[in-house]
Amino acid sequence: MICEIEVEVPGAGLHDITHRITEAVSQADITEGLCTLFIQHTSASLLIQENYDPSARADLERWLNRLVPEGDDIYTHTLEGPDDMPAHIKSALTATSVAVPVLDRKLALGNWQGIFIWEHRHRPHRRRVIIHLN
Amino acid sequence: MICEIEVEVPGAGLHDITHRITEAVSQADITEGLCTLFIQHTSASLLIQENYDPSARADLERWLNRLVPEGDDIYTHTLEGPDDMPAHIKSALTATSVAVPVLDRKLALGNWQGIFIWEHRHRPHRRRVIIHLN
Amino acid sequence: MICEIEVEVPGAGLHDITHRITEAVSQADITEGLCTLFIQHTSASLLIQENYDPSARADLERWLNRLVPEGDDIYTHTLEGPDDMPAHIKSALTATSVAVPVLDRKLALGNWQGIFIWEHRHRPHRRRVIIHLN
Repeated sequence: MICEIEVEVPGAGLHDITHRITEAVSQADITEGLCTLFIQHTSASLLIQENYDPSARADLERWLNRLVPEGDDIYTHTLEGPDDMPAHIKSALTATSVAVPVLDRKLALGNWQGIFIWEHRHRPHRRRVIIHLN
Repeated sequence: MICEIEVEVPGAGLHDITHRITEAVSQADITEGLCTLFIQHTSASLLIQENYDPSARADLERWLNRLVPEGDDIYTHTLEGPDDMPAHIKSALTATSVAVPVLDRKLALGNWQGIFIWEHRHRPHRRRVIIHLN
Repeated sequence: MICEIEVEVPGAGLHDITHRITEAVSQADITEGLCTLFIQHTSASLLIQENYDPSARADLERWLNRLVPEGDDIYTHTLEGPDDMPAHIKSALTATSVAVPVLDRKLALGNWQGIFIWEHRHRPHRRRVIIHLN
């Protein structure tokens, strides 16, 4: 089973989409299987991370921004704005697809795991994630 | 088919779990398919890497420790110890799920590929990996 | 369904293999499903990224080369040449497996997404990618 979701993200940072994926899994009515997510973009990515303490997510964002800063002299791909090339690099360093098993009709996430869209551009975007369940 | 394994890791570094996954594949008795692994943690990750020369693994560990050091002023998420926030960042930069095809009843790994848990915390941990086979 | 492709890459950089994967998908004649790719190497990886502007790919390559330079004093694994250990690190930071959904008999890639082998060694190599379709 495949479905698509669209997520409005207000700007850069980690946006929790766990409830959206959980919803798709419960609608699919699968007892045991695999849920594979794919994001159709090259400047936003998928991340499974700590869902409890917002300070961990803020630190992740700050750390990656320092590693991949805007305005780096190394960039030649600059026409789409100062946040575009860093966004591609950040996407390349994180995941475009992730898979989570389904057990007892539920995503088998660990206790503190959430599923996030990691938006790497400043402006609001509508991001599309494809959910494959089998 | 889904099964779970628990792995006792003594501390930070790469821990080879190839034999554990191989075992699960041979028990599942699948001729051809896909083996997807998922680690239920946010401070340990999965890696497929060189399984031959231990110096490559030691260098990987050292390099990542330098890129993501403890005690960085940027961290605000520090309550769980100095190795906690670096562990989340290291996990975000590596993989929470990986998939390996199964061919002729065996994992289709390359000649020098092994499957590892990359533990990012110092203390011993019991880590859970879910294996999905189809 | 599983098939293997071999790709001759002339040297380091991003090599577009989208057409090879598209071909495999159309031969498999699957209406809806999941295409999972696995690269059998530890010094080349898989990347889904911008396929439109070559400057983005050139910047990705340059940026990663600066992050993981050759000749770093930290390396002890140096017997296989100065580009070997950086190649393992670059592979660890990117993906060994990626999954792309199949919709209406086609890979459900976003508008600007292509599938690439990211070769991390200088010399030409023949790289093997296993394609699992279900």
